[in-house]
Amino acid sequence: MDELEVDAVAEVDLDEPALIEGLPGVGHVGKLAAEHLIEELDAESTLVRRIHSREFPPQVSVGDGVAELASARLHAVTVPDGRDLLVLTGDHQAGSNAGHYVLTDAFLDVAESFGASEVYALGGVPTGELIEEYAVLGAVSHEGLIEPLEDAGVEFREGEPAGGIVGVSGLLLGLGGRRGLDAACLMGETSGYLVDPKSARAVLRVLETRLEFTIDYGSLDERAEEMEEVVGKIQEMEGQAAVDVPSDDDLRYIG
Amino acid sequence: MDELEVDAVAEVDLDEPALIEGLPGVGHVGKLAAEHLIEELDAESTLVRRIHSREFPPQVSVGDGVAELASARLHAVTVPDGRDLLVLTGDHQAGSNAGHYVLTDAFLDVAESFGASEVYALGGVPTGELIEEYAVLGAVSHEGLIEPLEDAGVEFREGEPAGGIVGVSGLLLGLGGRRGLDAACLMGETSGYLVDPKSARAVLRVLETRLEFTIDYGSLDERAEEMEEVVGKIQEMEGQAAVDVPSDDDLRYIG
Amino acid sequence: MDELEVDAVAEVDLDEPALIEGLPGVGHVGKLAAEHLIEELDAESTLVRRIHSREFPPQVSVGDGVAELASARLHAVTVPDGRDLLVLTGDHQAGSNAGHYVLTDAFLDVAESFGASEVYALGGVPTGELIEEYAVLGAVSHEGLIEPLEDAGVEFREGEPAGGIVGVSGLLLGLGGRRGLDAACLMGETSGYLVDPKSARAVLRVLETRLEFTIDYGSLDERAEEMEEVVGKIQEMEGQAAVDVPSDDDLRYIG
Amino acid sequence: MDELEVDAVAEVDLDEPALIEGLPGVGHVGKLAAEHLIEELDAESTLVRRIHSREFPPQVSVGDGVAELASARLHAVTVPDGRDLLVLTGDHQAGSNAGHYVLTDAFLDVAESFGASEVYALGGVPTGELIEEYAVLGAVSHEGLIEPLEDAGVEFREGEPAGGIVGVSGLLLGLGGRRGLDAACLMGETSGYLVDPKSARAVLRVLETRLEFTIDYGSLDERAEEMEEVVGKIQEMEGQAAVDVPSDDDLRYIG
Repeated sequence: MDELEVDAVAEVDLDEPALIEGLPGVGHVGKLAAEHLIEELDAESTLVRRIHSREFPPQVSVGDGVAELASARLHAVTVPDGRDLLVLTGDHQAGSNAGHYVLTDAFLDVAESFGASEVYALGGVPTGELIEEYAVLGAVSHEGLIEPLEDAGVEFREGEPAGGIVGVSGLLLGLGGRRGLDAACLMGETSGYLVDPKSARAVLRVLETRLEFTIDYGSLDERAEEMEEVVGKIQEMEGQAAVDVPSDDDLRYIG
Repeated sequence: MDELEVDAVAEVDLDEPALIEGLPGVGHVGKLAAEHLIEELDAESTLVRRIHSREFPPQVSVGDGVAELASARLHAVTVPDGRDLLVLTGDHQAGSNAGHYVLTDAFLDVAESFGASEVYALGGVPTGELIEEYAVLGAVSHEGLIEPLEDAGVEFREGEPAGGIVGVSGLLLGLGGRRGLDAACLMGETSGYLVDPKSARAVLRVLETRLEFTIDYGSLDERAEEMEEVVGKIQEMEGQAAVDVPSDDDLRYIG
Repeated sequence: MDELEVDAVAEVDLDEPALIEGLPGVGHVGKLAAEHLIEELDAESTLVRRIHSREFPPQVSVGDGVAELASARLHAVTVPDGRDLLVLTGDHQAGSNAGHYVLTDAFLDVAESFGASEVYALGGVPTGELIEEYAVLGAVSHEGLIEPLEDAGVEFREGEPAGGIVGVSGLLLGLGGRRGLDAACLMGETSGYLVDPKSARAVLRVLETRLEFTIDYGSLDERAEEMEEVVGKIQEMEGQAAVDVPSDDDLRYIG
Repeated sequence: MDELEVDAVAEVDLDEPALIEGLPGVGHVGKLAAEHLIEELDAESTLVRRIHSREFPPQVSVGDGVAELASARLHAVTVPDGRDLLVLTGDHQAGSNAGHYVLTDAFLDVAESFGASEVYALGGVPTGELIEEYAVLGAVSHEGLIEPLEDAGVEFREGEPAGGIVGVSGLLLGLGGRRGLDAACLMGETSGYLVDPKSARAVLRVLETRLEFTIDYGSLDERAEEMEEVVGKIQEMEGQAAVDVPSDDDLRYIG
């Protein structure tokens, strides 16, 4: 296998599609959002490209017994009465600094071959605490993109995210901008500790407004409820622990 | 030395051999199995290729004073009345992500040059607890391979192994499948804590049925017994420890 | 993007400029010094080159919502009545050993294209304790550079810094020297625990004398005072802690 | 700078020299031995090659103020009435797996350009305890080299060193053997905890016998005595500590 191989799985004609990226990252927000989008628009979605690379881990995933080589996958989505989409998903970021540059350039090459000139990198931004109101932070490749995104509900905060944006999402802005593409990163606030379907929903709501599609959130809300049950049980266990386990002081008292 | 060098040690004509890989991994199951196979079929085994690579650690092993450069080794085995085999063994996986891709491609190139179109990657799958019944899990490159392997005693469980298959074994499926080869990974269940000859035996039993050879397990059973003595001694020591060593509470009582 | 790309942002004619490097490092001394220089000579400074590379982290920084791809930046500074300067700043060192060599060679190529034949790599040398008198240690590519730098207040101490000089600063001396450039490293003493504007000031004072420019230190002194307040608060908290928190012995007494 | 550059510092005609390598490693045995050899045969030693490489750390060392780029150095030594020597020293191993292969091949290329067909890689083998009798273990590229080395006092022990030989020393055997050179690794036993001049002396004694040169050990013995004083002081401090510091049990008694 070459350093990078793009398998053409199918061909679909798209009209100036927007590239939407959702690879694994903080709270799996981007991945959840991109996968939910493909599932909900299933009837209009076609897997068009598989991208393999030595920059991915040397790994296969196994579903129903059949192994699948580590890859990123590109779905073409022809939204009824809306913008066409190219949705990029996968299970891995690159395994090295240089690898992120190589992969992101490959993703942009493929997207441009479908006529894309607009890029939305989806992700999460960790706040370190549980979220009540799920704000969506933005960062863009060109200043002119700020206003229309603010109209769609995105917040731009001076100097945030403080640590910048790393990985494929960051480079889609950096390298996309160098190519003259209109690239934006939409980052849902999330605690950073757990997979966060609610943050993914907030990011998708922005995208709905911006790209004029409509999807159902039933399955994402179910997953959010499951996560909340998990959180509830953990808190319950911690509560009991606080009652049952004697502290050091107690022991001294007893001793 | 080039990035990769394949030394031709001997030439043997084989009839559509099956490639069997057993490099180091979980419980050393694959390595034990492949090495046992070569030992038991010693009279029919010939070392045909040595593969050196910068992707291996910069290391020599020393047996009887003579140093041997890190390598993978390919033995041709002409099984009486059975399928010819190519058995791949060695002491190392690659040292980097990309290296695993490079090495696996080299292994497949060499195997195909001998006419191989079938690949069995042997390994272990960790369960985290001691095993009573040694099941052998399977994963394959093409759906059609599942049924004949189930007939040979392999289990296919939805979504297992959960973390996928990493390293050379995983890529033999992933890259082998891309080449159109029939590739399967046979993974013996093992605790994951110890070298596990019993798991290696379980894997070899599947291979006997599937590839129609017969071997003796005497030496492997001896090794299994040695391992059990070791485990027994550890458990004994832990048992005594529980008796002899006063706990924190005891000390407070005394104090 | 290629492995390395140099964007020409502007062209400025310089007369035998001196290259001054200040990338992140111990106490951020070099970075603080180089950035202060550009700020204070703002009217005479022009951003001339941006250097992007796969050797940098896969990262964008976000200021006012617009993402900026990881880069090193070269400013041309035409000092009134003084030597012309090329000031190299940025937010990252390389991410690998080989990457430091590649980047440093690129920095030297660009500097030589502007006619530079003199290099000053700025940095800090950690002492492990708070500094009263900020000495500036030196290391040079050619023996003849020692005397003029001693005249400018630089100290040369046998065998210091003991661990050598690592990263871009070290290679500017090593690779610069191999090119026949006059290269020096100026290292301000610093505790090594904190960002140290005072050490940056000491380094800049040497450079003022050596390269005949004059700058104001008001903003750097303010930052130094802020840092001292931070240090003071930490010491205060530690002092209180020593009073309030009962030691193990106290607890036994109480128990 | 290219990935690898060999600077010709001087030319010396040698008659079938033996390459002796002493880079940093366990107990710095090889490095101490090689450097002592060059110092003691100073009048007959000439620095002939400096090897720079991106595989070395991005680092300069600083002696008397002048920086020296990370390198390996090759000295030609014309031993009176004995074999000519090429002695390889330096401060670094490679920084990556592949780098060790690249560097070792470069070292062998240079050595062969001087007509060398014999290689001695010097190093230490850790025993984990203080040594009384300093044995020197051997490993060779070809079986025929064992007997003459045993005659020079080298011990060959089945399966030792158990972990093989890593780094440049190991590859000099592995890659040297593949080139048809006579390569041996001489490993002085050493605790593994400290720089060990006595182990270096034991290795050099073997080399004296084998290559027919004679050197003085005064300075190496002095260093050994210094090390012993250090060890003595550490043991003394540990002894006092055992007396002064009350144990947990003492504290309970007091409490």
